Amino acid sequence: MQQHMQDKLIIFDTTLRDGEQSPGAAMTKEEKIRIARQLEKLGVDVIEAGFAAASPGDADAIHAIAKTVKNSTVCSLARANERDVRAAGEAITPAKSGRIHTFIATSPIHMEKKLRMTPDQVVENAVEAVKLALEYTDNVEFSAEDAVRSEMDFLVRIFDAVIQAGAKTLNVPDTVGYSIPVLWGERIQQLIARVPNSDKVIWSTHCHNDLGMAVANSLAAVMNGARQVECTINGLGERAGNASLEEVVMAVKTRRDVFSCDTRIDTTQIVPTSKLVSSITGYPVQPNKAVVGANAFSHESGIHQDGVLKHRETYEIMRAEDVGWGANKLTLGKLSGRNAFKTRLQELGIVLESEEVLNAAFGKFKELADKKREIFDEDLQALVSDEIISEAPEHYKLVYLQVKSETGETPHAKVTILESTKERSAEADGGGPVDASFKALESMVQSGAELLLYSVNNITSGTDAQGEVTVRLSKESRIVNGLGADTDIVIASAKAYINALNKLHSKLERAHPQV
Amino acid sequence: MQQHMQDKLIIFDTTLRDGEQSPGAAMTKEEKIRIARQLEKLGVDVIEAGFAAASPGDADAIHAIAKTVKNSTVCSLARANERDVRAAGEAITPAKSGRIHTFIATSPIHMEKKLRMTPDQVVENAVEAVKLALEYTDNVEFSAEDAVRSEMDFLVRIFDAVIQAGAKTLNVPDTVGYSIPVLWGERIQQLIARVPNSDKVIWSTHCHNDLGMAVANSLAAVMNGARQVECTINGLGERAGNASLEEVVMAVKTRRDVFSCDTRIDTTQIVPTSKLVSSITGYPVQPNKAVVGANAFSHESGIHQDGVLKHRETYEIMRAEDVGWGANKLTLGKLSGRNAFKTRLQELGIVLESEEVLNAAFGKFKELADKKREIFDEDLQALVSDEIISEAPEHYKLVYLQVKSETGETPHAKVTILESTKERSAEADGGGPVDASFKALESMVQSGAELLLYSVNNITSGTDAQGEVTVRLSKESRIVNGLGADTDIVIASAKAYINALNKLHSKLERAHPQV
Repeated sequence: MQQHMQDKLIIFDTTLRDGEQSPGAAMTKEEKIRIARQLEKLGVDVIEAGFAAASPGDADAIHAIAKTVKNSTVCSLARANERDVRAAGEAITPAKSGRIHTFIATSPIHMEKKLRMTPDQVVENAVEAVKLALEYTDNVEFSAEDAVRSEMDFLVRIFDAVIQAGAKTLNVPDTVGYSIPVLWGERIQQLIARVPNSDKVIWSTHCHNDLGMAVANSLAAVMNGARQVECTINGLGERAGNASLEEVVMAVKTRRDVFSCDTRIDTTQIVPTSKLVSSITGYPVQPNKAVVGANAFSHESGIHQDGVLKHRETYEIMRAEDVGWGANKLTLGKLSGRNAFKTRLQELGIVLESEEVLNAAFGKFKELADKKREIFDEDLQALVSDEIISEAPEHYKLVYLQVKSETGETPHAKVTILESTKERSAEADGGGPVDASFKALESMVQSGAELLLYSVNNITSGTDAQGEVTVRLSKESRIVNGLGADTDIVIASAKAYINALNKLHSKLERAHPQV
Repeated sequence: MQQHMQDKLIIFDTTLRDGEQSPGAAMTKEEKIRIARQLEKLGVDVIEAGFAAASPGDADAIHAIAKTVKNSTVCSLARANERDVRAAGEAITPAKSGRIHTFIATSPIHMEKKLRMTPDQVVENAVEAVKLALEYTDNVEFSAEDAVRSEMDFLVRIFDAVIQAGAKTLNVPDTVGYSIPVLWGERIQQLIARVPNSDKVIWSTHCHNDLGMAVANSLAAVMNGARQVECTINGLGERAGNASLEEVVMAVKTRRDVFSCDTRIDTTQIVPTSKLVSSITGYPVQPNKAVVGANAFSHESGIHQDGVLKHRETYEIMRAEDVGWGANKLTLGKLSGRNAFKTRLQELGIVLESEEVLNAAFGKFKELADKKREIFDEDLQALVSDEIISEAPEHYKLVYLQVKSETGETPHAKVTILESTKERSAEADGGGPVDASFKALESMVQSGAELLLYSVNNITSGTDAQGEVTVRLSKESRIVNGLGADTDIVIASAKAYINALNKLHSKLERAHPQV
């Protein structure tokens, strides 16, 4: 086997970079920090916190995460050019352990059609980028974009050159999600066999899921010597997404008979992390998703249940509690005090920035406790998401909403908002109470945005559950997700719409790279 | 390579059997027939329509599908015992092409702990079941449940015995979703090499997705000689589900350079089939799902978009239109007549059973057209789902609903229902308008059911979209999904709740097997 077969598999999470490239998944700095803290708690080795050169906002978020996170390496992506590498280097400066991840495309189709560069120029740019990155950190990763469609001889040449230049991690991405496990494993094995000094570096893989095989391809790479997997929570990412962190980690753990390595992930943090990312990005997890789907550990069939009762192992290969299911129990009730509230938030890894914010959140908690018998961790997370969202400067604010649903009647909404300091009111009819509310809002704001998606998830079960609404708006090629939570679904919808309008109003500008 | 390497890969869809075993995915006979018709249109080779011995309702649905479907083989599952095989044989009697699929567990853990049988008894039962099945059809499939944890020598012995008994298809399931592609491929290869007369039969695989590798394992089997894959639409199925039909089919098609076989699937029917199954079962498809997820073909990143613009192939390995995206265009409007409506339904493969039902559906269409500017195929499907649901005998019916949402006020609902022939009214407060409506309903019906899931999906985009609500109720170990569609989300919710109550009231009893 490979000479450098080590027993540690490095988990490189790119939820905040590749995951954020999902349409509408753009996050605020505060949201990114919350996820980064949770990734640290999960035990991720490397957190790719963003792409510093994309925008000042991206650089700022990476910088803030680098300051906050202590037990994970914090990484910024950078194209192989001076501006990108310097932006990345500056963003990671505060990190206890920082990495620069630079990349360039190596397939003929990308070099010709996208970069318009010769292979010699591509190698030269890669080497220069790695050398420049070393001025900021000795932890430099290099990726050969579209390695799946690159020529083997050229890959060997460029990887050899960047190792000589000082890169410590070499990443082999299947950018377009085209490979299948047996071929991907072979490719990794050949690279490790042919590249000089391959045993002095860590080989990594980054697979996309277009044909549903991102996890299997990643694991085939691991079986052939890769010791870093780039992945995301819930398999988030462009198009069909990236390899799911939770599936990669649990496969390696469950099949220790096959994989000669393991991760340092605290698997009991997997489900809480999955829920946090889903709630912040507005991306639902389908019930039949492996590991983190609501059904992953439920058993419907009669025969099957019989089997489970007779002997647990007949159908279970993992235990729900090992991945953090059932950890979200009833926590607080109507009589819980401010201290119990604060303590539980801390246990959930939620740090509110000031006493004022804490007090506002506690006020909301008391309001919620009046409406809802039992308050679960998920309720707290939703409530505090809302609070943290509210912390960002809000151009529009909901003051009052009234709308009636009645069979056979046209719903009519009355809405009052605060725009900066001015109160404005409007009324509108609509196809339903939500539609009427949105139309009343639009009649005042006139954003002209298109509604791409409207979805509702109950945060907890029971008829008194809080509803969490995601509204995705698109305007002039920008897409934003707005979130709103309330036990009243119509009010939650209006809040979500206003949240999305505020995000559109804040005009984040950014560019996203592809690996 | 294998002696019987043929160029045809048989697609065996088990959405109606294994998929239906997802919690709450139980379907009515009419819903199953609609899906079966769509699977026939998709070009599925074998439709596993159910498990006849589970209940008279299951047997009846299989019988009805066997009568309806002409271009696909219709199959029933049966445990390896006389009662099951006879029930399956009778259910498939009307089929132009019918198959019986019989199975028994072959792993030591299952034989000992679940079956409490010796290996000799297991072989004997399998052989007897296959022989009995041949009295009904010459198309008999045998599955070795939990083959992944079975001993190779025993698998060879039992497969040899059932081939001698007359089985034509041998299925190798990874019942617990434990395998990884390289090992699964090896297992199939060894079986084909060791089992006498293996070239006279079709080898099949059935993989579960607990570690996220169902598709990759299925394809590894295909690369090693399997020529049937058992899969489901959207990867539906127990726990993390089965291999996704759409991913298996598109991987084989996209990588013709690797797979020496192809399917007869009409890939442009993939997305419509996915939407139909999602809408009937109430199981959403996550946006970052390969092939059928809303984002599967969307491109967010700036660099990436640039690449796409410069040269389409830089990031695309499949085309959205090849799998049926964009096929659901604006179809009808306010001025469309009854004939246009009927014709479009026929094009969508929807056959309404009588003129009365068509007239009722057309009435609803006109109502909808008053509220909604543009009517899309999805709207029609939702509207007609509602109509088809209403066709089933309804114990409870919504007559009137009124509820107000107002910031700072407690929502109060007034509801009137028809129970059989008696009108009843009730009022209730709640945490939101939906909660208040459900509480008013419960105060009359007193089902005592627990609300497990409440979800809303917009069927089309735009603020005047119809909302489709799924309500999942659980009572005494039974789980049902109720669906309701309306442009008013609160009314849609009440309809969904009542639909679920009607399903609970109809008391389908069934047992489900596991393969």
